[in-house]
Amino acid sequence: MKQSLLFVPTLKEAPKDADVKSHKLMSRAGIIKQVAAGIYTYLPLGYKVIKKIEEIIRQELDKIGASELLMPALQPKDLWDESGRWDKYGPELMRLTDRKDRDFCLGPTHEEVITQVVRDYVSSYKKLPLALYQIQTKFRDEMRPRFGLMRGREFIMKDAYTFSETEEDLERWYKLFTKAYIDIFKRCGLDTKIVSSDVGQIGGDEADEFMVMSEVGEDTITYCDKCDYAANQEHSLLNSGDKCPVCDGTIHTAKGIEVGNIFKLGTKYSESMNGKFAGRDGKPQPMIMGCYGLGISRTLMASVEQHSNEDGIVWPKEIAPFKVHIVPINLKDEDQYKLAYEIYESLKSSGIEVLIDDRAERAGSKFKDADLIGIPFRVVVGKDAKDLKVEFTDRLKGEKELVLASEILTLI
Amino acid sequence: MKQSLLFVPTLKEAPKDADVKSHKLMSRAGIIKQVAAGIYTYLPLGYKVIKKIEEIIRQELDKIGASELLMPALQPKDLWDESGRWDKYGPELMRLTDRKDRDFCLGPTHEEVITQVVRDYVSSYKKLPLALYQIQTKFRDEMRPRFGLMRGREFIMKDAYTFSETEEDLERWYKLFTKAYIDIFKRCGLDTKIVSSDVGQIGGDEADEFMVMSEVGEDTITYCDKCDYAANQEHSLLNSGDKCPVCDGTIHTAKGIEVGNIFKLGTKYSESMNGKFAGRDGKPQPMIMGCYGLGISRTLMASVEQHSNEDGIVWPKEIAPFKVHIVPINLKDEDQYKLAYEIYESLKSSGIEVLIDDRAERAGSKFKDADLIGIPFRVVVGKDAKDLKVEFTDRLKGEKELVLASEILTLI
Repeated sequence: MKQSLLFVPTLKEAPKDADVKSHKLMSRAGIIKQVAAGIYTYLPLGYKVIKKIEEIIRQELDKIGASELLMPALQPKDLWDESGRWDKYGPELMRLTDRKDRDFCLGPTHEEVITQVVRDYVSSYKKLPLALYQIQTKFRDEMRPRFGLMRGREFIMKDAYTFSETEEDLERWYKLFTKAYIDIFKRCGLDTKIVSSDVGQIGGDEADEFMVMSEVGEDTITYCDKCDYAANQEHSLLNSGDKCPVCDGTIHTAKGIEVGNIFKLGTKYSESMNGKFAGRDGKPQPMIMGCYGLGISRTLMASVEQHSNEDGIVWPKEIAPFKVHIVPINLKDEDQYKLAYEIYESLKSSGIEVLIDDRAERAGSKFKDADLIGIPFRVVVGKDAKDLKVEFTDRLKGEKELVLASEILTLI
Repeated sequence: MKQSLLFVPTLKEAPKDADVKSHKLMSRAGIIKQVAAGIYTYLPLGYKVIKKIEEIIRQELDKIGASELLMPALQPKDLWDESGRWDKYGPELMRLTDRKDRDFCLGPTHEEVITQVVRDYVSSYKKLPLALYQIQTKFRDEMRPRFGLMRGREFIMKDAYTFSETEEDLERWYKLFTKAYIDIFKRCGLDTKIVSSDVGQIGGDEADEFMVMSEVGEDTITYCDKCDYAANQEHSLLNSGDKCPVCDGTIHTAKGIEVGNIFKLGTKYSESMNGKFAGRDGKPQPMIMGCYGLGISRTLMASVEQHSNEDGIVWPKEIAPFKVHIVPINLKDEDQYKLAYEIYESLKSSGIEVLIDDRAERAGSKFKDADLIGIPFRVVVGKDAKDLKVEFTDRLKGEKELVLASEILTLI
C-alpha cells in the first residue's frame, strides 16, 4: 500500500486527556481518534490490527468447533425481562425507546439473545452440544470512560456461548476455550495469567479472567510465588505477604488488565428463559450454558501497552498492520525510486504486506512517523541504492544492517 | 465443516409475517432469525454469506485506492448540530441519552463523523485526495419494518466518503466507485441498473442509485427502451409510455430494490462543519465530498430474491456459504462412510469450502435441507460408493450425473 493513499494522521503531541502510554501512542500514531468520551474511530492502521486480531480469534475458535454468527446490538426489553436483568443491570446499560415507545437496550452482552436464538431449535439432546460466537460492537455507559480503549463506552468484543447436555460437556468446552484463549493471546504477543474471579453481573457458578500484567491495569491480582494459584484480589481477599491457600508459598500482588473472561453460567438463563430440551429420559431439562468474552479493542490496547520503545509502537509480528515498511529517502533520485518500487512490487507479489512511504516529506519526518507506527521490518532506501543495497532494521531486535535488496526476503 | 457442529436451524414452515420470497427462504434455511420487528440475528450460514459479500467489497474498494476504517455507531448530538441535521432528520434517527443526560444518536450514516475525523488532519491540498470506507452496522427506526432484510431497523452497510480538492477529482472518484459497484454486484450474482435519483436526507448536488430489478422492489424505475436513460420515478416524474427525455425511445417502468446509492455531496458538510484546507493559492477552501453507500444485508436479500428454485435457495457461486455439500445417505455403511470422508478431506486440503452432512437424519430429510440451503455443488454418497462413484449435481445447471469420486475436483 502507498502511504500517500492510506490515512495515517500522525501527531507530534498526544491529546491532553490521553492518560496512559498506549492511549498516547495510539493517538499519536494515527491508530485511533476520539469522537466523544470513551468513543473512538479506528483509523485505517488501527483497524488493520483489529482485523488481524479478529482473524486469529476466528482461526482458533473454528479449530475447537465453534461457529460464528452475528446478533443485533439493539435488544428488546422483553428478553431482558425474561432473564430478570432489565431492572438489575443499572445505569451501565444504555437504554432507548423506539418511535412507538417500546424499550430497547444496546447489548453489553448477549446471553438473552443467544438463548432466544437457540431455545426454539434445540428440542432434543441430539442437537447438543452447540458452541456459537460473534465478533461485535458492544455498549456500556461507563461512569468514567478512561485509559483510551481500556474503559470505552463502545468497544469490540468476541463473545461465545456454549450449550451442553451435561456438566461434563460444559467442563470440556471450558477447557477448550481456555486453551484457545491462551493461544489467541500468545499470537497477539501477550502473556496472560488465568485468575479465578467473581461472576458479577453475568452470573453463574464459576468464572476465570485472563489478565495481562501491566502497571496501568485496573485490577489487582494475587498470585503465589511457588504454585499456579492466581486470583483477582476482589475474589481472593488475600494480600501481599499472605500464605498461599494451595501450597506453602507466599502471595504477591500485581496490577492486571483484563482481556478475557469465561463463565460457567450453568442454567441461570436456560431456567429463567425456558431454554429446555428433551433429555435421554424424554423429560425436559435446561441447557447447561457457558459464556466466553474476549475484549478485542482491549487486546489491541494491551498489546501497545506492552510493546513499544521510546520512539513509538513496536507491533508484535502477527498483528502488525503491515510486515515491511519501505522508506525511500529521496524519491527524486532515480536509483532510489527504482529500487524502492522494485522491492515493493517483489514483496507484494510474494504475498507480504508492505507499506511504502511515497510521500513528499523530508527524510527526518518520514523516520519519525516510521518509528511511531512501528511496522516490524524497515527497509530504508538511500544513497546505497546505486549498489542495490538498503538499510534493513528488525525493529524487535533493534539491529540495523546494510544488506543487498535481494536478501530481504530471507531476513523477514 | 461438519453439519452437526454448524448451527443450521432449518424450518418446514416460514414464520407467518414473512411476506416476500427471500424472507421466507432465509427464515426456513437457517440464514436469519428475527429478534424484534426489523431486527435480525444472522445465523452461521447467513453470516458466512455476509462475510463473503464484505470480502468482495474490500477487494474492489482496495483496488481503487480506498482505505478501510471503523467509526462508532454512537454519535454525539453536537456533531449533528454542526451539520444542522439533528433537528431535520426526523423520527428515523434513533436517539438516546447517556447517564449524564447528553444526547446521542445511533448512526444511520456517517457524514458528520467522517468530516470530524478528516478535518483536523487535512490542512493543505497536499493531503488530498482521500477515500475512506467502513463496513458497519447502521440503525434506522423504520415506521414499518418489512420484507425481512429490505427495510430493517438494524442493518449492515458499507459507506465510503471521498475528499477532493476539485470538482474534477470528485468526478473521478464518482466514476471509480460506479465501476467498483458494478463489479461488486456482478460478483454477488446481481444485475443492476444505475438510475439517477433525488439527494434526499443526505443532501448534495447529484445522486445515483443501483437498482436490482425485482417485483418486490419498493421503488419504481423509469427507463428507456432504446438508450441508457434510467431514473427513479420519484425523480423523473415520467410514466410508462412517455417519450424518453434523451432520445426518441419510449419510457417503461419496473420495480427495483435499491442496493447502493452514491452522492456528490459537494461542500454541504465541509462548509457547515468547517472542513477547510489551504488551497494552492494559500486560501482556505472547503473539501469537496462524495459519499457512497452499499447495503450489505440488502444485497444478501436481493441475491436470494433472484436466485432460488421451488425447493430452496441456489446461491451464486462467489457468495455461497460453502462450495460443495457432501450428503452421505447412510453413514453406517462402511463404504459410504469411508468415501464421504475421503472426498471431504481431499476437497478441504485443496482449499475448497465443503460442508458434510454427518447428522443422524434420514436421507429424505437430509435432501430437503440440502435443497433449502442451496450450496452450488452437491455430492450424494450412496449405494455406488462401493464402486467409488457418487451422484454429482451442479445446482445452477440442475443436472445430476453419476461420476467417479476422483473426478469431482475437475467438475467444480
